Amino acid sequence: MSVTDSTSDGGPGEEPSRRSFLRSGIGIAAIPMGAAEASISKETAPIPPEPTNPRLTTFSAGTRGEYRIVSMQTLVGDPLPSADRISIVPGTNRLETEGSTWTLRGVTSNERYVDRSEKRRLAEVQAPLGRATSDVSVLIPLRKTPAWWALTQEERREIFESRSHHIQIGLRALPAVARRLYHCRDLATVEPFDFITQFDFASADTAKFDELLAALRAGEEWRYIDRECEIRMVRD
Amino acid sequence: MSVTDSTSDGGPGEEPSRRSFLRSGIGIAAIPMGAAEASISKETAPIPPEPTNPRLTTFSAGTRGEYRIVSMQTLVGDPLPSADRISIVPGTNRLETEGSTWTLRGVTSNERYVDRSEKRRLAEVQAPLGRATSDVSVLIPLRKTPAWWALTQEERREIFESRSHHIQIGLRALPAVARRLYHCRDLATVEPFDFITQFDFASADTAKFDELLAALRAGEEWRYIDRECEIRMVRD
Repeated sequence: MSVTDSTSDGGPGEEPSRRSFLRSGIGIAAIPMGAAEASISKETAPIPPEPTNPRLTTFSAGTRGEYRIVSMQTLVGDPLPSADRISIVPGTNRLETEGSTWTLRGVTSNERYVDRSEKRRLAEVQAPLGRATSDVSVLIPLRKTPAWWALTQEERREIFESRSHHIQIGLRALPAVARRLYHCRDLATVEPFDFITQFDFASADTAKFDELLAALRAGEEWRYIDRECEIRMVRD
Repeated sequence: MSVTDSTSDGGPGEEPSRRSFLRSGIGIAAIPMGAAEASISKETAPIPPEPTNPRLTTFSAGTRGEYRIVSMQTLVGDPLPSADRISIVPGTNRLETEGSTWTLRGVTSNERYVDRSEKRRLAEVQAPLGRATSDVSVLIPLRKTPAWWALTQEERREIFESRSHHIQIGLRALPAVARRLYHCRDLATVEPFDFITQFDFASADTAKFDELLAALRAGEEWRYIDRECEIRMVRD
């Protein structure tokens, strides 16, 4: 198995915990039989936590968090309520999100559109999130239309790359602008967005990022987006 | 920037509840601020349910349920604990699964591999689950290897159809054998399988189904499967 980037692919970092869970002999996502009939009563028994997908990330906005929000903008669709700070943490814990104004969640997953040569090229030039020099972070949650999801894979790829050049545009901003894509559409809960993309870069590279964003938004792919927000943040 | 009117694409069956949730002004998957500080104490306050993805289905095995298990077989990987009956219900509710031996979940999603002509052909001949004549149901939960998920989309399509003829084999059994695919890999919880396929058909068509299954399992695609169970059931 060859995986170039653990962030984009469900790569090496995350497989072990999934596998060790399966090897534990549980191998099922159920509440163990009889768990609720233990010594504590049913009313007060805490619901045992279900094991969290190691590819899941939670974005909680409110008054706390390591990122300070600099600006929030709504490009299309309903805005997100305004907040001061955002916390970005692996996994999810409902209790931790109690004080938050809003919470978004997404999982990294297998790539849907890149071909082998693009994947190779991306692996050569892409940078990881969280470099010491990356003082600016941006979140772009977006939702695509039912018309997009009704297209076939080849039709989506055709719009995504052949006509909108999504991958080629992204490559131009590399390695200055690091990115990670999270998928929200196939979670068990109703999520307000289909995707969240997290970017980070040095403030000196802001123009490169703005150019990337403008180029993507000018493409045909963006006609299939009916909700999009843009949240710029600094880490302090 | 040009964006399609978000009000003009009120799509298929599942979209309305998603949209009405978003229109409700919440538009976020968060616990409302202060919900836990209501008149009941934090310890006994029930956690408010999060809105469930309308494409989610829960499969609970145990002693109850509308399907009686006739046989359970493990093709590869860990077996599922044996059970007498299975309940297949829309959505999920952790309390309802308390008495179950195991619970699987999955969401229906956009198609990943069919092209336009295959999609058209499938639409012409496929049948829905739940016909009055379909007295046999089969669940096939399966997991694909990390090597599969590290492939690009085009490489997966090449194995799936060009070399394993997954869609063509499925078409041969239509309309006798109805099927629905659920995705589990990108849920927020660790799930023991990547997919669950539910089939149903009249018992007189069992040979057609067996042939379909044997043909799929003989293909190259199946070399990328490291866990597979087969659960045959009747509805009574």
